[in-house]
Amino acid sequence: MSKDRITEQLAFLAEIDALKSVVRQSPLANRSRRENSAEHSWHLAMFALVLADDDTVDVAQVIKLLLVHDIVEIDAGDAPIHGNHNSQDIEAREHAAAVRLFGLLPDDQAAKLSALWREFEAAETPEAKFAKALDRLQPLLLNTLTNGGTWRENQVSEQQVRERYGPTIERGSAKLWRHAQALVQQHFATSTNSQP
Amino acid sequence: MSKDRITEQLAFLAEIDALKSVVRQSPLANRSRRENSAEHSWHLAMFALVLADDDTVDVAQVIKLLLVHDIVEIDAGDAPIHGNHNSQDIEAREHAAAVRLFGLLPDDQAAKLSALWREFEAAETPEAKFAKALDRLQPLLLNTLTNGGTWRENQVSEQQVRERYGPTIERGSAKLWRHAQALVQQHFATSTNSQP
Repeated sequence: MSKDRITEQLAFLAEIDALKSVVRQSPLANRSRRENSAEHSWHLAMFALVLADDDTVDVAQVIKLLLVHDIVEIDAGDAPIHGNHNSQDIEAREHAAAVRLFGLLPDDQAAKLSALWREFEAAETPEAKFAKALDRLQPLLLNTLTNGGTWRENQVSEQQVRERYGPTIERGSAKLWRHAQALVQQHFATSTNSQP
Repeated sequence: MSKDRITEQLAFLAEIDALKSVVRQSPLANRSRRENSAEHSWHLAMFALVLADDDTVDVAQVIKLLLVHDIVEIDAGDAPIHGNHNSQDIEAREHAAAVRLFGLLPDDQAAKLSALWREFEAAETPEAKFAKALDRLQPLLLNTLTNGGTWRENQVSEQQVRERYGPTIERGSAKLWRHAQALVQQHFATSTNSQP
């Protein structure tokens, strides 16, 4: 079989199946296990479909950014929010991953998907800012649904939650952050493990 | 907290987290476990982003149909392609699931997401036909990547594969079915378990 367009496209789609095996820190809402990055990406796309406002952002573009945003983790791994990271090192690994993974596609599509990933990472367009906000809001919601989730595991205080989630969510949507703040406040006021 | 719009939206987004626990028959490409319907939906959305042709379908609409298409399985369960089903019974359960799950949303969004699900199910628009084709192509690809996957498990013949996958894929894209047929033929010609 010659390396025709569909063959390259299916090779890429087969390769990214591996995102289903990249395990994140966040628990599922039913606490049965930790979430993986593929199902996380689906969940975020649904957040966009439900929470994005067509008057302020291009919803379809937000969805595309979120579908693609974690694919580099197949090679570079997930970098949890409550961990210590060398951000330059992560950046280099993610860049190499983008070159390899998107490079499996026909050239025009490699450029298109790389551009989506770079737009998300740069967080400059309204769509990327909103997508980044959802990428913080979703684990925040999962933590409030699971008696603290990764906050409890990592002994993260209410103040640290505000610092680590607030700026990114507020930058994408002040309205979402107002609501998320209320959830955080309610969680720490009532959680059985709010004092580690 | 009053039942404001965001509260209803987040209640829906929390509820659909359960799609991550609906297990399908298809194996992951690395054979480590079976796929769940949330990560399957992400994978299909990526199939759409890569394989859909902007000249013939509205790619963003195909993606939206695929993000939503399996949500009813949270209540109704997955109906595997190689099983015996009472299709009227499944239809009734899925309809009730759509009413309950999409009904968690504000009314305008409940109508919008229900419409997406019904458009997918009806398989009449070009976008729904293409989305249905991808929903058959993706497990076909996974099976060819895993030495037969669900075909081997269920002793499904090459002829049965053509009958069960062909019409739906071809109706969405004759080009994709030509390519998929070649993959099927190659699989059954070389599989170590092609004769169960």
